[in-house]
Amino acid sequence: MAKIAIMGFGTVGSGVYEIMRKNASGISRKASADIDIKYILDIRDFSSHPENQLFTKSFDDILNDSEVEVVVEVMGGLHPAYEFTKAALEAGKSVVTSNKELVATYGSELLKIAEDNNINYMFEASVGGGIPIIRPLHQCLAANEINQIIGILNGTTNYILTQMIRAGKSFEEALADAQAKGYAERNPAADVEGHDACRKIAILSSLASGKHVDYNEILTEGITGITLEDVHYADSLGYVIKLIGFSDIQADGRVFARVCPMLVQKSSPLAGVEDVFNAIMVKGDSIGEVMFYGRGAGKLPTASAVVADVIDCVKHINKSKHIMWTKTAENFMISADDVYVSYFVRATTDKAFVKNQIPEAEFVSCDGNETVFVTPRDKEGSLNGKLAKIGGVLSKIRILEE
Amino acid sequence: MAKIAIMGFGTVGSGVYEIMRKNASGISRKASADIDIKYILDIRDFSSHPENQLFTKSFDDILNDSEVEVVVEVMGGLHPAYEFTKAALEAGKSVVTSNKELVATYGSELLKIAEDNNINYMFEASVGGGIPIIRPLHQCLAANEINQIIGILNGTTNYILTQMIRAGKSFEEALADAQAKGYAERNPAADVEGHDACRKIAILSSLASGKHVDYNEILTEGITGITLEDVHYADSLGYVIKLIGFSDIQADGRVFARVCPMLVQKSSPLAGVEDVFNAIMVKGDSIGEVMFYGRGAGKLPTASAVVADVIDCVKHINKSKHIMWTKTAENFMISADDVYVSYFVRATTDKAFVKNQIPEAEFVSCDGNETVFVTPRDKEGSLNGKLAKIGGVLSKIRILEE
Repeated sequence: MAKIAIMGFGTVGSGVYEIMRKNASGISRKASADIDIKYILDIRDFSSHPENQLFTKSFDDILNDSEVEVVVEVMGGLHPAYEFTKAALEAGKSVVTSNKELVATYGSELLKIAEDNNINYMFEASVGGGIPIIRPLHQCLAANEINQIIGILNGTTNYILTQMIRAGKSFEEALADAQAKGYAERNPAADVEGHDACRKIAILSSLASGKHVDYNEILTEGITGITLEDVHYADSLGYVIKLIGFSDIQADGRVFARVCPMLVQKSSPLAGVEDVFNAIMVKGDSIGEVMFYGRGAGKLPTASAVVADVIDCVKHINKSKHIMWTKTAENFMISADDVYVSYFVRATTDKAFVKNQIPEAEFVSCDGNETVFVTPRDKEGSLNGKLAKIGGVLSKIRILEE
Repeated sequence: MAKIAIMGFGTVGSGVYEIMRKNASGISRKASADIDIKYILDIRDFSSHPENQLFTKSFDDILNDSEVEVVVEVMGGLHPAYEFTKAALEAGKSVVTSNKELVATYGSELLKIAEDNNINYMFEASVGGGIPIIRPLHQCLAANEINQIIGILNGTTNYILTQMIRAGKSFEEALADAQAKGYAERNPAADVEGHDACRKIAILSSLASGKHVDYNEILTEGITGITLEDVHYADSLGYVIKLIGFSDIQADGRVFARVCPMLVQKSSPLAGVEDVFNAIMVKGDSIGEVMFYGRGAGKLPTASAVVADVIDCVKHINKSKHIMWTKTAENFMISADDVYVSYFVRATTDKAFVKNQIPEAEFVSCDGNETVFVTPRDKEGSLNGKLAKIGGVLSKIRILEE
């Protein structure tokens, strides 16, 4: 019998409870042990819950109970989630989380504590909701050097872009639609500005490179500037616009990571990822490319990833799985200026002037009001310099090279 | 230091050797131990190989060496792979395989021996080449009841169908093209008749249901009967034709599994899986649907899945991962006659007679020579009876309901 505690009884926490109750026999069989929920920590009142005896408002109940071997942290936010997680790990309890903010910020420290205590800190649910990605990246692709990760990591923005592409809605209309459906928050900044995707690509980059990739160093652009004109031009050129979390892990250990809207070729498997679905493409030296696809959010998908981690923790009591990345002092992040890219550009500047600055530009349309072109592939710093000279840029969107 | 032996130095075996040498440091780090190849078993002569001292022609060298803790079986075929695997497991050595024929045939017995000896029999490479699917199905989706698996499991047939769809080649032309490119064997029966996909869906069905699904009981149709007319009609109706391995795991534990060409809606993520790529969609009660995509074959992708299993075995010396399915006496396979399906049909019979037999048929075309229609969804046994009465059936292809 393994005893666990759930910290946070919000969407994910109540989903974990629900799955543990519903699929109890299958879960016990897979863990080779019965798993019992001993505590649920939440500061709110759940006295009318059918299992109200499980609820506590005191973290110390969990921390001081040596029977509790696995703690599920699904509180969200940095504090007190960080303090609780650290204390639990130091007390020799494995911790499972869906908290991407916490993993992206304190992952290297918390993983080290887990390693030192011969237990585990697991976070499958922190990226891609229920899509298996952390364990495949760490275990199934262990024989590979991972070179690149390209992901559609945020369901809200993918839904909005799909509505713009498929239904011809403007960004504002599509956002309102997403909010009405409950896919977007009333304050949608974390999603539409790319911050959520940024935390996730930081975690994936850290895991793949073995070094802590600070999300503050990841250039992040959201989709608020994308217009229907951009969508239509992209379509005519054979592309769709997606918000892409991108990470390039070089042979010398240096990393380039970014979040931005990109033009994705319609023939790419990523182009067909629509609505709230997420997908993560991973390229390795032996495997070539593999892609993982599914619902990147939602109560039960996310909770099922948490419960899978709980099962794995129970199977590995007192046995570290050695998931690690280290905090390094050296600067190993590559500057965007040095990265090769090509842009799709719409500008009010006339064609002759554009041609003068970028002779190799491929012109898509020049109707007097607007010059639309695609730049050759060049260092981003150099291209940005030329576009600054050209001026009048209405939009510039990077083109994904696969 | 963990010592391993590789049995079979063909395509996959030499790939395993290559990856072990090339990514040695990363592999050691992930396994938390150095991994050393002590023997390579092959009856052929490799005396000019740079590491010829590793080669042996005698299985007993491996079996009797207590230092060897993990054996890689990539010989293929049932015998002597079965006898060698059984002996190695009984001697307390974990075994990793890419041999789908062996896993599909003797999996339940070999997994039981591994469990009894507290070691592991792992077979990630047996399905989907390098695509992580066995471990995700067993571990990452452990909190789910798996309801359905729908897979494009054979790269050769997917390449042939893609050539028919994209380049308008006939089946014979596309097959010759696949053979010229090395994607199809000179005797292509195992691929084009669906036998390869059948072994793979048998393994996935066994893993998901926990019961041995005998591949002899899986209805299997290949793609040799698919014509360009079928492809064009499918296209006009919004479908592409794919060879699908299908498994339905019901709540009462009964299973329906089948391999056959199917009409797949163009909006399905499976429709975009082209050329030699494979994809496996898994539906679970919590997760909704997830899909795994990548190269389903090839030396390095397959070998990288084998090496990942080796790493996992080394991390779990004397610790069974409890991957199991049991051989049951009861008949739990559902008869196709009782399964609901709708058919796309081309027949020489005239429309009036078709309408008389199947009043709800939707007619696509009736040009005098040929009546093309889609049947309503009904029990397959009943539909087959009606189509037998109608007669003159040129082709009937099932439509995938997702």
